[in-house]
Amino acid sequence: MFGLIPKEEKFFAMFRDMSHNIIEGAQLLKDMLDNFDDPVASQRKIKEVEHKGDTITHDIIKKLNKSFITPFDREDIYALSAALDDILDLIDASAQRFVMYNVEKPTPESKELAFLILKSCQTIDKTVALLGGKLEPISAYCIEVNALENEADRVCREAISRLFDEEKDPIQLIKWKEIYETLETATDKCEDAANILESVVVKNA
Amino acid sequence: MFGLIPKEEKFFAMFRDMSHNIIEGAQLLKDMLDNFDDPVASQRKIKEVEHKGDTITHDIIKKLNKSFITPFDREDIYALSAALDDILDLIDASAQRFVMYNVEKPTPESKELAFLILKSCQTIDKTVALLGGKLEPISAYCIEVNALENEADRVCREAISRLFDEEKDPIQLIKWKEIYETLETATDKCEDAANILESVVVKNA
Amino acid sequence: MFGLIPKEEKFFAMFRDMSHNIIEGAQLLKDMLDNFDDPVASQRKIKEVEHKGDTITHDIIKKLNKSFITPFDREDIYALSAALDDILDLIDASAQRFVMYNVEKPTPESKELAFLILKSCQTIDKTVALLGGKLEPISAYCIEVNALENEADRVCREAISRLFDEEKDPIQLIKWKEIYETLETATDKCEDAANILESVVVKNA
Repeated sequence: MFGLIPKEEKFFAMFRDMSHNIIEGAQLLKDMLDNFDDPVASQRKIKEVEHKGDTITHDIIKKLNKSFITPFDREDIYALSAALDDILDLIDASAQRFVMYNVEKPTPESKELAFLILKSCQTIDKTVALLGGKLEPISAYCIEVNALENEADRVCREAISRLFDEEKDPIQLIKWKEIYETLETATDKCEDAANILESVVVKNA
Repeated sequence: MFGLIPKEEKFFAMFRDMSHNIIEGAQLLKDMLDNFDDPVASQRKIKEVEHKGDTITHDIIKKLNKSFITPFDREDIYALSAALDDILDLIDASAQRFVMYNVEKPTPESKELAFLILKSCQTIDKTVALLGGKLEPISAYCIEVNALENEADRVCREAISRLFDEEKDPIQLIKWKEIYETLETATDKCEDAANILESVVVKNA
Repeated sequence: MFGLIPKEEKFFAMFRDMSHNIIEGAQLLKDMLDNFDDPVASQRKIKEVEHKGDTITHDIIKKLNKSFITPFDREDIYALSAALDDILDLIDASAQRFVMYNVEKPTPESKELAFLILKSCQTIDKTVALLGGKLEPISAYCIEVNALENEADRVCREAISRLFDEEKDPIQLIKWKEIYETLETATDKCEDAANILESVVVKNA
């Protein structure tokens, strides 16, 4: 049977705090683009969530460095917390670019990418929720995160192709190319986290 | 004397599959640029090779996570398989950019970079071939990969310098700058793999 | 009380050589921008310092791979030497861009970033100097490096915002955007090194 010995339940709770916080950041980014009334205020809220994420990550690392026994491999806990922190950094970096580049109106593709980021983060959260119990269903969620990353990659590539076909102003092109790439990188980070989670499952099967 | 105890011959065979697959990808990229008849078809073939690489990498990781005893340090196997996978990702990313940016004709510098990538991959393959036996000659191959990366770096820097001197269309400049950088990053990934291989040699001397 | 058993004093001396060398690179970069008389010659000197850094890093790794007992966790020594090497690579990459892009005159923001890089490197050096003895004061230095990175991030973001507001020539915009980003990445690498150093402190408290 599957199952990790819950030597340190606290780790699971901290990871859960982190994945909830990531969903909050992803939801704020989606709302920001769907309703582009006050991007500066939206970005400020996302920044706060990102700071909260830094604190949780820092607490996990501190706890990790002081624990003799850990519920799964020390290196995987370290890698997972870094990967989750990276997701939030990229959500924040995406929001920042809309403000920094004085974007007037988000494009449909950027909204689609924000939607795919939120879906990925929700799937990561479902996976993290299983860490203390039955690990078996985790693999299916990881496959879902991979599929969402592939989809985001496709949307990003098509958006950039279209940009090079249609956008005649090179400065607008530079801005949007970077916005699409930053949004897409957030889903890459979700995939990194999913890969670590999958390896935890295999090791503890 | 040099030599790794071949506790798990299967790992060596899997790495060899991977390095053969990488050579195939690198050869396809070189052919694509030397003979730019149907870049879309070429890119599709490279994508297939990249997918095959994903499968091999996945199998290595799965085997790694289930093995108690490994022929060399677990973390080095993990790092090496990730580095080899990255090489193929960058070969694929390079090919993609020629299609996505509707390139009409590859430049001499891009062909030169594709040639240096192929040479690096061939050298990596020779190194991987030695893993089960005498490790001593590996160091010389690693030095060769480093020299090829330095050469690619020089070609890339000169190509970008020339671009900024000569290309007046900023959109063309953006496209080619990224193509050169993506090609060059493939040789960086070869160097990363070589560094891991060199550290395996030192540890097992 | 704090303290690492100095099993291998030589490691501390090698890290100190490395951090001195990094300061030298950072000082040369700052001098290059403050006094932009002969950027090609300045860049060549920085390149030499970077090569020296490669040699020190290589020696640390070689020593690491041959040592049974290490003064702190093997993986942390590896990560720290890689992080210190990355700082110097980014200093060199920054200098290169001023030459490659035929920059006529450094902007105030680029000078400010070079100043923040130098301050970060000096702080890293103070931290490295403490590795063999009392570790306690290291944490305060790490917080300082984090603060300097935040400041560099702010300077970089404002410089890029201003660029998009004021620079009408897209090719100039591309050049300066990349220069600012490369300089800022050097302080990111300082932060990575500080994070590793902080984790060494926590583990050995």
